[in-house]
Amino acid sequence: MQTRRNWIRSSIGLGGLLLAPEIALSKEEVRKFNPRPLSKTIKLSSNENPYGPSEKVQKAVIKAFKNGCRYPRTYSNALAEKLAKLHGVSTENIIITGGSTEGLKITGLTFANGGGEIIAAKPTFLAMMNFAEQWGAKIRWVPVGEDKGYDLNAINNRINNNTKLVFLCNPNNPTATVLGKESLIDFCSSASKKTIVFSDEAYYDFIQTPNYPSMDSLVREGKNVIVSKTFSKVYGLAGFRIGYLIAPSHLSKEIRKNIVAMTNVLAIAAADTAIDDKEFYNFSLNKIIEGRKIITTTLDKIGLKHTPSNTNFVFFHSKRHIDDLGKQMLEQGIKIGRPFPPFYDWCRISIGTLEETKMFANTLEKIYS
Amino acid sequence: MQTRRNWIRSSIGLGGLLLAPEIALSKEEVRKFNPRPLSKTIKLSSNENPYGPSEKVQKAVIKAFKNGCRYPRTYSNALAEKLAKLHGVSTENIIITGGSTEGLKITGLTFANGGGEIIAAKPTFLAMMNFAEQWGAKIRWVPVGEDKGYDLNAINNRINNNTKLVFLCNPNNPTATVLGKESLIDFCSSASKKTIVFSDEAYYDFIQTPNYPSMDSLVREGKNVIVSKTFSKVYGLAGFRIGYLIAPSHLSKEIRKNIVAMTNVLAIAAADTAIDDKEFYNFSLNKIIEGRKIITTTLDKIGLKHTPSNTNFVFFHSKRHIDDLGKQMLEQGIKIGRPFPPFYDWCRISIGTLEETKMFANTLEKIYS
Repeated sequence: MQTRRNWIRSSIGLGGLLLAPEIALSKEEVRKFNPRPLSKTIKLSSNENPYGPSEKVQKAVIKAFKNGCRYPRTYSNALAEKLAKLHGVSTENIIITGGSTEGLKITGLTFANGGGEIIAAKPTFLAMMNFAEQWGAKIRWVPVGEDKGYDLNAINNRINNNTKLVFLCNPNNPTATVLGKESLIDFCSSASKKTIVFSDEAYYDFIQTPNYPSMDSLVREGKNVIVSKTFSKVYGLAGFRIGYLIAPSHLSKEIRKNIVAMTNVLAIAAADTAIDDKEFYNFSLNKIIEGRKIITTTLDKIGLKHTPSNTNFVFFHSKRHIDDLGKQMLEQGIKIGRPFPPFYDWCRISIGTLEETKMFANTLEKIYS
Repeated sequence: MQTRRNWIRSSIGLGGLLLAPEIALSKEEVRKFNPRPLSKTIKLSSNENPYGPSEKVQKAVIKAFKNGCRYPRTYSNALAEKLAKLHGVSTENIIITGGSTEGLKITGLTFANGGGEIIAAKPTFLAMMNFAEQWGAKIRWVPVGEDKGYDLNAINNRINNNTKLVFLCNPNNPTATVLGKESLIDFCSSASKKTIVFSDEAYYDFIQTPNYPSMDSLVREGKNVIVSKTFSKVYGLAGFRIGYLIAPSHLSKEIRKNIVAMTNVLAIAAADTAIDDKEFYNFSLNKIIEGRKIITTTLDKIGLKHTPSNTNFVFFHSKRHIDDLGKQMLEQGIKIGRPFPPFYDWCRISIGTLEETKMFANTLEKIYS
């Protein structure tokens, strides 16, 4: 087995890959945007953003140390006001949570416990469904279509009197697909007359379609729609654990009762600053889009099919069992995504730094050559 | 109404209170232990520690910025190992939570949902009971005794076949009382044969009795005992939201399923360092004990009865309705504890910095003179 270190060396030898000027960040960029340094094993398995927290966010957190001995309520209330303004809603429509995961779990618990039904695509992000199932919810799984995107007709047909909630992860994790603007709005508008529609918008910022709408507009109209947002993706704050729900008052007051942990003082300061740190936002977004292109170009070159990615990861047809590919990649020091049933011959690869991404791309080429 | 600023001025005029050398911290102490600066309103209402995060903890958090874009699992697993060693248990016995509040809430949810009974003192810390009640638990309240301490006989007599858990907050919030060593061990040992005993040890470090035992010893023996610990009190990390449960495996595996948010990467780094930062721990503990003496001496001087405090707050007989005292105090810029039914003529006052504590003591003397 060739060690990764040897392989890096040979890559440098072959094409000077790691020193390529288009990959290297300037000292200023490193200081400002805090890229993950290259580690022994490159982790491209959890859809984390390799940049961040930004220099500005770091400074805000350091400033918040003085409030570190205080409980978060005062500070989270202030952030909720800011978020409410941002989305054109009232503070009662904002529920700040410990990452969006807490929002997903407590929403499932609140509305589907004790036998309620949740309709969800297969595969999708499972936090809500797994938690709700523990509390007696029944999950009605609707397979994604041929294109790996949501089958809204099939989902619509599954809605019945026991349906408590339709879960949409849009763009969808792990398939990277996004719904068409119009079909999304039509579906949410009509389905929310019959049940609650939950729109998980964790990957919203990475959508390729210009001016793609957030479903917060339907919350503003008071519809049965809940939106979840997170600071874990484009903002690079996954470790801080902060996200929020936007929900009409008749739903938010039910969910709010079930908050378990909320977030922390440092994450609040970080989020507050991150929202305004456009320089980081643009850098982070652009670098991820750049990395996405590297991966899709490589996949096209090798001839591996992939869905159009609207996320910070790419979902591609590995043509071999994901466990096998996972093992091969790990031998080269790269950790790829876990299996996502029923697509055992598909791979989800998170977009790392350009350096990490190029290393993944080169390794993939090698493996498939 | 005399403004606080004027009052501070007059106090300084009267006795040079704020400049008294025994109160002032050295520059080095300020840097190392990060006391809350004096603010417009002095908040002595939430049992927060006015010191911390310490300089060492701050440095650890800054160092952890590089992991800020990563999900916490790897880091929390490492901390769980350290905590397990500390308590002489296995990592499977440690559940790290978003403050101990998450531990309290999910434990109540896990064992008492759907009609299970929890036995709890009145008054006590309500996070577990309020959350469990929402999920169908029945709370059997047992009034504290004449001395405001737990009535273990009465609690024991309430245990029946529907009892899922006995909640002990020991030392108890808001009464500041602690159970006798022997009676605690006897009760936990015998009651845990019939039901789960939960020992909330948030204020454990402030206990006056030397060598007071933690109930983690009974967890080590595999008894039906769960202990909760927090970094919010003596460690001064309330805003970071990190705590943990110590529970035997047959219970921890049930609770763990219901984790909603867990904690964050920065809090993990902070806790990891705080455990070893003995200098801060001793400073924090000593200053709080010093503040506690200032308050109890003042209460004795005025002639207001108080319980022996084993916490970072004092519970005293205000002889007037707490709402009235709260209003009078707030007019002087000091926020005291909320009402704790049924003791509407008792006050819970958190111990702030010595400066804050002296200001409270002087204001109290003025009000009662």
